Amino acid sequence: MVQIPKTPASAPPAPTRSVPTSADVARLAGVSRATVSYVLNNAGAVRISEPTRRRVRDAARELGYVPHAAARSLRAGHSRTVLMPAPAFPVGPLYSQFINELQAALARLDYTVVQYGTSGVHDDEAARAWAELRPVAVLVPGSGLGPRGVDVLKRAGARAVVTLGPEAVEGAHALLMDHDVVGHSAGAHLFDRGRRRIGVIVPREPGLEAFSAPRLAGVRAALRGTDATVTELPLAADEGAAARLAARWRDLGLDAVFTYNDEYAMLLMRALQDEGVRIPEEAAVVGADNLMLGRLLRPRLSTVHLDLPCGRELAGLVDRAVRDPAAAPEAHKALGASVVRRESS
Amino acid sequence: MVQIPKTPASAPPAPTRSVPTSADVARLAGVSRATVSYVLNNAGAVRISEPTRRRVRDAARELGYVPHAAARSLRAGHSRTVLMPAPAFPVGPLYSQFINELQAALARLDYTVVQYGTSGVHDDEAARAWAELRPVAVLVPGSGLGPRGVDVLKRAGARAVVTLGPEAVEGAHALLMDHDVVGHSAGAHLFDRGRRRIGVIVPREPGLEAFSAPRLAGVRAALRGTDATVTELPLAADEGAAARLAARWRDLGLDAVFTYNDEYAMLLMRALQDEGVRIPEEAAVVGADNLMLGRLLRPRLSTVHLDLPCGRELAGLVDRAVRDPAAAPEAHKALGASVVRRESS
Repeated sequence: MVQIPKTPASAPPAPTRSVPTSADVARLAGVSRATVSYVLNNAGAVRISEPTRRRVRDAARELGYVPHAAARSLRAGHSRTVLMPAPAFPVGPLYSQFINELQAALARLDYTVVQYGTSGVHDDEAARAWAELRPVAVLVPGSGLGPRGVDVLKRAGARAVVTLGPEAVEGAHALLMDHDVVGHSAGAHLFDRGRRRIGVIVPREPGLEAFSAPRLAGVRAALRGTDATVTELPLAADEGAAARLAARWRDLGLDAVFTYNDEYAMLLMRALQDEGVRIPEEAAVVGADNLMLGRLLRPRLSTVHLDLPCGRELAGLVDRAVRDPAAAPEAHKALGASVVRRESS
Repeated sequence: MVQIPKTPASAPPAPTRSVPTSADVARLAGVSRATVSYVLNNAGAVRISEPTRRRVRDAARELGYVPHAAARSLRAGHSRTVLMPAPAFPVGPLYSQFINELQAALARLDYTVVQYGTSGVHDDEAARAWAELRPVAVLVPGSGLGPRGVDVLKRAGARAVVTLGPEAVEGAHALLMDHDVVGHSAGAHLFDRGRRRIGVIVPREPGLEAFSAPRLAGVRAALRGTDATVTELPLAADEGAAARLAARWRDLGLDAVFTYNDEYAMLLMRALQDEGVRIPEEAAVVGADNLMLGRLLRPRLSTVHLDLPCGRELAGLVDRAVRDPAAAPEAHKALGASVVRRESS
């Protein structure tokens, strides 16, 4: 770790000044506070002459005044803030991209997306912390919000609560991200390739259970009623753990493995290869996420491609829900999956 | 892309209710609004009996009232919000971990960290958008904030502005993250290994210039005055581009390459190996970031380990600055680098 010492830089202390208010701007521009508010908040419906607008803007610039988002939302009774609690799980590149798209799409609809970390706070307590920010909409990734939490948020003025998770929550719109389909695709693919004794990696990394459990269940569901068996393989994200699993591979009597994602696939493939286990002959391997690294591995990695909802459409759903808060909650299946077969299976 | 259809779920419409206020809580509990505020905002200095506290809390729960963070910050004159604009560059796992640590450390100091995406907005315009949220402190990753932006934020009441970037900005505290040292370490290492014709990968991915330019400059600085040459190698993050570069490798007459980071190293190593170029004999390769994937490559990847500031210390710096807004801006070198030599160099 780099230590941060306490030596001051050479610049002189900044003078402390009082924060300018809209009253200061009104005084300098010679207009009412209401006029300042209309001009700086772009209230289009109010007719104000261009010279007056310019005078207000010049005064604001001179004083260094910017409108106060909180004051504006207090006056309006609601904000344009969409709150998105930061997810409690490690975020991969695929999910990051989805979030970025969504934020950009909401920004184009004139919402402000705020990500808010509430690590260590759960369920109703988290909902209360979110409600304090008086968001107009809340988008909750993962599980952890119950019907009471939804109620707390709505009572605090949230017009729309949208969950992104495996199950719908009463009172909230739901984008059903059931990772069951990911495991189902992988299991069905391995069965089609003639494999019958299938291992499933379950990461030990905290925060991933919400994804790994349904993926495992999906593999089981795909193989139900067949002669294939499913073996759960817990694995930590480190080379030692992977080497130990690879050393046991032949004793386990398995002929295939679904590795949860491409990164665990890379880890396990390396360990299997170091152990002399041939891929795919002795171990067919399927990852998930379809990252570029899978194409760089040898043999090239088969993977499950996840089809996430499009950020623009989700932004549209949020906007419709905000405009019509009394509408019935909608639930949409929002996760598709398909196997990209390469050389490892 | 998964399409989001517009079929409603089966749940009935939620009734719209008016948002309860602290006045409603006061009425139900039979106390003043000030008492409600003292109890729910945990103002420890005010003596209120436990039965009264309980009555207020019960009334708040019954009505579904939560305090309004914006109203509280308007009363207090400032918030406990630390604003951290979302970075405009693709974030790797190392940086994510740093941000997570920092958020947790600030939360323990009772700050609320809000990440706020302002993509497409730059410089002073961005500073005004951030100022509207009246944060008590602003932590700006990367470049893009000038002295005028710092002034806008301070006039809007921000007690501390901290930049994390290559250069200090007038009026703001600076954590100097000069990526020069990363390139310097890589260049010096390759020179020590006897290499004299050194290529440097410069990613074409947008948003990375702020890192790639100083890393390249660092390699040049390390080799200045020696007989070694430095060749800039622009590279897009795709296999086709890597294959084309690998096909030209022997014509380039280079004997080593610093690949910007470990992910580009993986991409280029695969392409070089597919081309039959021996690593490290014909091309010594050094990455950066010290990701696990480097240990999984064969030959194992040499890399530059980045030593980022510790989240807890940075949180301490923010807190000191908030408590003493008139103090002189501090500037700290906050990036260390050391080479982890493995088999590729």
